[in-house]
Amino acid sequence: MAALVIGHMNPDTDSITAAIACADLLKKLGKDVVPAAQGEPTPETKFVLDKFGLTAPQVVNDVAGKDIYLVDFSDLAQAPKGMDSACVKGIVDHHKLGDVTTAAPLDAWIWAVGCTGTVLKNMYDFYGVEIPKNIAGAMLCAILSDTVIFKSPTCTDADKKAVEALAKIAGVADVKALGMEMFKVKSAVDGASMHDLVFRDYKDFDMNGNKVGIGQLEVVDLSLLDNVKAGLQAEIAKVKSEGRHSVFLLLTDIMKEGSEMLIVSDDPSVVKKAFGVEPKGNSVWLDGVMSRKKQVVPNFEKAFK
Amino acid sequence: MAALVIGHMNPDTDSITAAIACADLLKKLGKDVVPAAQGEPTPETKFVLDKFGLTAPQVVNDVAGKDIYLVDFSDLAQAPKGMDSACVKGIVDHHKLGDVTTAAPLDAWIWAVGCTGTVLKNMYDFYGVEIPKNIAGAMLCAILSDTVIFKSPTCTDADKKAVEALAKIAGVADVKALGMEMFKVKSAVDGASMHDLVFRDYKDFDMNGNKVGIGQLEVVDLSLLDNVKAGLQAEIAKVKSEGRHSVFLLLTDIMKEGSEMLIVSDDPSVVKKAFGVEPKGNSVWLDGVMSRKKQVVPNFEKAFK
Repeated sequence: MAALVIGHMNPDTDSITAAIACADLLKKLGKDVVPAAQGEPTPETKFVLDKFGLTAPQVVNDVAGKDIYLVDFSDLAQAPKGMDSACVKGIVDHHKLGDVTTAAPLDAWIWAVGCTGTVLKNMYDFYGVEIPKNIAGAMLCAILSDTVIFKSPTCTDADKKAVEALAKIAGVADVKALGMEMFKVKSAVDGASMHDLVFRDYKDFDMNGNKVGIGQLEVVDLSLLDNVKAGLQAEIAKVKSEGRHSVFLLLTDIMKEGSEMLIVSDDPSVVKKAFGVEPKGNSVWLDGVMSRKKQVVPNFEKAFK
Repeated sequence: MAALVIGHMNPDTDSITAAIACADLLKKLGKDVVPAAQGEPTPETKFVLDKFGLTAPQVVNDVAGKDIYLVDFSDLAQAPKGMDSACVKGIVDHHKLGDVTTAAPLDAWIWAVGCTGTVLKNMYDFYGVEIPKNIAGAMLCAILSDTVIFKSPTCTDADKKAVEALAKIAGVADVKALGMEMFKVKSAVDGASMHDLVFRDYKDFDMNGNKVGIGQLEVVDLSLLDNVKAGLQAEIAKVKSEGRHSVFLLLTDIMKEGSEMLIVSDDPSVVKKAFGVEPKGNSVWLDGVMSRKKQVVPNFEKAFK
């Protein structure tokens, strides 16, 4: 039985393209693997897959008894069902180290860079495996997405170097133009349900025993969300009522480089504790905050201690 | 304040030489770090440090409030005091993924190879940093020790390749002779207390909520231990009485390629569950079993489920 290479819940572009790239690399290293995903691609990811002629990975929500490789996460809260009896053979990630543990040695490449795609680019090089042109294009887009076209504080020199090399392989002449084209697709909210928007890029975390959900919508201009803000606030209240301590939704303006955070919490004081800013009503503007991973999760982790 | 590069409790040769090598590499990459260890070197490690003119790292047993890099482990049970308030910046390891978690992204290189020294050799190469001659010699010995001179089932091609390259750098002509010289030092039990022998290479594990200690003594001939076996059995009973479910001590004969395991447990049936062999009294011969990591811990993890 082929092992699965699978990303986190509510898959984003990195999670899906990393599963495709990692499976390609592992196959070329002689492993029997297939890419998988815990859901359908978002509009942004669809744009990327279509652009480079790639197929979305099969959707898998239960990994009981299977051999698996995790990409783009190491938290059980973001894992599929059946992890108790799955065997994690490897992890490629760029987040904080989560609570996944294994019973046997594994291959884990977890780097403090902006995107799993950057780690994978280095793994291809390390193993001396050539990156297919279309997969290079998809990895490139994942890095542009995760680093918000290099604007995010998570962006490192390694990410920029990887983008430069991947652009050459993929034959992309203007990476910033490609990034903007992708973020315009990402900004489109027309026709999407409130539920879809909240969960488009959403993750649950265990913070000192409290279940905390944090979603993020990135747009090229915050005014695009004016008409849906009230609906989003009502939707996160619903999500919180399903047994969570808090749900936060970051509405990130990638041009203004900051985020409005919508708040629903059993203890809203964690927001001031985390960011030093007093919310106005149910929301707060966080200037310069663009990265959930680097600027939001660590601050909340401390505030919840 | 310099960050600490530190290995597991009851440090073995890999744990100490990996701290030295990893600190050397990180320093050359511009980080402010110093090597540390959770205890004094064993006779084997002392032999290695003396042979290559290296100094034992400072002993540190509390890392509260410090930035740390972990080498050769990722289990909290093997960590120093103060982990709650320490910040883990990186991990280099070759074991199963333990329960250490972080609040922020980190650099983790965790590979399913025979020794942390092998991962570090590849990291030096990846970053294009030259390995100092004496550190190469120490890394070489760590790999020979962890892989029992290539005989352990944990030994991979990557380990053999690393040894070959490190031997050239260190100017070691006959690696097997060096390995045997080291294992003869390791086999010496005269003058050591029973406590020292049990803890010479000892680790605690959390197995499904049970605290389980597993020690290992490797000797070139099991008959060297005839005079101390009763004393060792009494000593592990004492260690068990300090709040553990079980303590197992592997007496490994590296020439016969197997281990006699001394047993003290609240539920001795886990041994048959784990290995399919019925113990005789308080011990059992496990033919071909040389690796705690690959052949003992995973079997017990399953047996305790």
